[in-house]
Amino acid sequence: MSFKVTEDYIKSLRQVLESKDSGLKDLLVELHAADIAEILTYFSIDEVLQLLDALPKEKLSGILIYTDEDIREEILETLTGSEIALLVSDNMNTDDAVDIISELSEEKKHDVLSNIDDLDFAKDLADLLTHAEGTAGALMATELVKVNKNWTVLRCVREMRRQAEEIDVVHAVYVVDNNDILLGSLSLKKLLTTSTKTEISEIFEKSIRSVTSTTEDAEVTRVMKKYDLFVVPVIDEIGRLLGRITLDDVVDIIQEEADSNYQLMSGLSDEVSNEDGLFQTTKARLPWLLIGLLGGVLTSTVISGNKSEITLIPQIVFFIPLIAAMGGNVGVQSSAIVVQAIANSTLQKNIWKRLARELGVGLFNGLICAMVIVIYSWAMGQGFLFAIAVGSSLLAVVLFASLFGTAIPWVLNRYNIDPALATGPFITTTNDVLGLSIYFAIANALL
Amino acid sequence: MSFKVTEDYIKSLRQVLESKDSGLKDLLVELHAADIAEILTYFSIDEVLQLLDALPKEKLSGILIYTDEDIREEILETLTGSEIALLVSDNMNTDDAVDIISELSEEKKHDVLSNIDDLDFAKDLADLLTHAEGTAGALMATELVKVNKNWTVLRCVREMRRQAEEIDVVHAVYVVDNNDILLGSLSLKKLLTTSTKTEISEIFEKSIRSVTSTTEDAEVTRVMKKYDLFVVPVIDEIGRLLGRITLDDVVDIIQEEADSNYQLMSGLSDEVSNEDGLFQTTKARLPWLLIGLLGGVLTSTVISGNKSEITLIPQIVFFIPLIAAMGGNVGVQSSAIVVQAIANSTLQKNIWKRLARELGVGLFNGLICAMVIVIYSWAMGQGFLFAIAVGSSLLAVVLFASLFGTAIPWVLNRYNIDPALATGPFITTTNDVLGLSIYFAIANALL
Repeated sequence: MSFKVTEDYIKSLRQVLESKDSGLKDLLVELHAADIAEILTYFSIDEVLQLLDALPKEKLSGILIYTDEDIREEILETLTGSEIALLVSDNMNTDDAVDIISELSEEKKHDVLSNIDDLDFAKDLADLLTHAEGTAGALMATELVKVNKNWTVLRCVREMRRQAEEIDVVHAVYVVDNNDILLGSLSLKKLLTTSTKTEISEIFEKSIRSVTSTTEDAEVTRVMKKYDLFVVPVIDEIGRLLGRITLDDVVDIIQEEADSNYQLMSGLSDEVSNEDGLFQTTKARLPWLLIGLLGGVLTSTVISGNKSEITLIPQIVFFIPLIAAMGGNVGVQSSAIVVQAIANSTLQKNIWKRLARELGVGLFNGLICAMVIVIYSWAMGQGFLFAIAVGSSLLAVVLFASLFGTAIPWVLNRYNIDPALATGPFITTTNDVLGLSIYFAIANALL
Repeated sequence: MSFKVTEDYIKSLRQVLESKDSGLKDLLVELHAADIAEILTYFSIDEVLQLLDALPKEKLSGILIYTDEDIREEILETLTGSEIALLVSDNMNTDDAVDIISELSEEKKHDVLSNIDDLDFAKDLADLLTHAEGTAGALMATELVKVNKNWTVLRCVREMRRQAEEIDVVHAVYVVDNNDILLGSLSLKKLLTTSTKTEISEIFEKSIRSVTSTTEDAEVTRVMKKYDLFVVPVIDEIGRLLGRITLDDVVDIIQEEADSNYQLMSGLSDEVSNEDGLFQTTKARLPWLLIGLLGGVLTSTVISGNKSEITLIPQIVFFIPLIAAMGGNVGVQSSAIVVQAIANSTLQKNIWKRLARELGVGLFNGLICAMVIVIYSWAMGQGFLFAIAVGSSLLAVVLFASLFGTAIPWVLNRYNIDPALATGPFITTTNDVLGLSIYFAIANALL
């Protein structure tokens, strides 16, 4: 039922494109705007402009909504302010229009807004553009259906009909007073099943969850997820209804948050994209590698500080990478659990209980791993006392890394630093240095 | 506007609970079911049962929908089949009811189903329970509003009114033929703005995106995200309308997928929960640590195989952790990008181009890091040739790890293994072993 972009499809499309065949339009015109937007990602910007040229002008507005930011930016650069004004005025919702306009330069923004014929629409856009990024105000759209609490059901249906003319989908019907203060919502069910003479104030649902325009994205997401909301109204400080946020926007936020966590954790700076050039990609990764390098230099000083020991017991060197790696692995495990608990706001409950449990788990896993390595080292004929030294170092490193891994993201979070940073190269590096120091100290004491 | 659970609130609630004060009910009864469900996570199971006991029976059904699986399981264990039958029959949608029933033992499942009075509801549940987990069929609910294409708008509104009696929210109005085959959807706007005598067949929207009951969760997610759908109809193989899936279910899937990727990457087995006991937590982490241990043992053999070299040039040991760690860091960076591209299905485009770019980035970053380390080592008086050996080893390791990190998740994906595995301890461990081998080989050749 749903079209899927395949490599073969792209290949044939490219052939038609290169042959300058007029069949290009027929191939694309029946597709959903989201499909065309996906197809565009497979082509260079010159080809993208050729493809769009072949399509009827009225399709472009829909396609722009679904197009990746990078590609969209390049398309918009080829258009004048009044052309963009036409596009955003063409059946586009205010939130999508603001998404597009906010990417433009200040000058072009102004150019676009002053070229929009529908003054109310232009005003709404100008208002929306004033909200800070990352807040409910920047996320909302102003298209909504609202009714006055003093109206009858009959008048309500008539007004809804008028308002619906301008709106694609009716997500909810909001009830306001004469000052536009949000009072509640009206269910379609109630509207369908009540006599037309009834006053709205008698039948509307008074308990309604809303956010204010300054509420942060993360809180909007939390509220909508927690209460299973498909749409949430946005009000100003005194309770006036400004707009609404729909769940599809929140889906995008959740996805972006997950992607960004994953990248932080992998040692990639935020906002790195697949389509970035060589230089940008290098820049996004280098800082983490330099941190790793610094860690490596520190471990090298730890080792060189124990040169004399190494000369006495050469096999001490064999297990250097093992000790370092295990500290890192355990640290990442412990911190990942805490980072996730923070993200799901289930952490506050009991940090001490959690530390105790992490220690318990570390003790178990550490003992098992230590036993394995003692047996291995002993079996390799490296001497019993040496095997014990390696095993007890491993246990100590695992225990230490468990505590450290649990505490670090918790401390970062306390100081409002993204705790996901803790599971990146940072913790691995720190654990390398501390792990090896513990190793040499124990070996020193025992041998 | 929205209630927030604070530590203070929990503390005072616990006091009231312990004092067996009758005020408990008043504290909770006004809260949203989702809030009560969140509160429950702060208490032991005995306290949870006490809290629920204090509430009016009719609240329990709503609370169960929002309660964490672990706690819900324990609550359900204290209830009989007929008690659960009453709960799920009480205003619960079929998808939520199935979520709850599917967690029960086969015997109890049967007990619950045979105790449901509403036979149609019981039949729907029994049907839904037959769908395999992870498919659209297991995700859908059967509550929906459908109209026949031959009806007039008037009859349609009358029938919708009847159907809406049993349904909380009308997400969409589906149009079917006499055989229940899905034909399209009807917008509320059309319904509100068309004369009551018009036939539905003249005004309904024929292009509709649907999934079949066997469509996998990931594909349902992809379709709903791509086309910005709030609800998608589910049909059987011959096109009959079976149910619908709403975006809130997809939000849960996206979140679970993100969590699971994050855990895999941190070396935690899937489905580890915050509330797991010591034994389960240990079990979830030990496999990854044992893989790490195996890697450590392998590196120890690599080092012991180069014993003579170490005796000749003792400073070679200093940079062992650095070489190992940098290989791991670069490998994780490269693989994370590929894993994310696979997840967003933007990979297929050009694996060769990607490999080339990763090599380019590796070359850049490798050269910068190598230069830093050459200068450092030389400045530390470790000899120019030695510094060059360390630097060129680092460059080789970084280049190798870039290629390896790019290829591994791609190969895993080809063989239908979750590529997220590649960014876990697996790639770090492999890179440790290979990195050190390269290091010793180059040192051997140069010195």
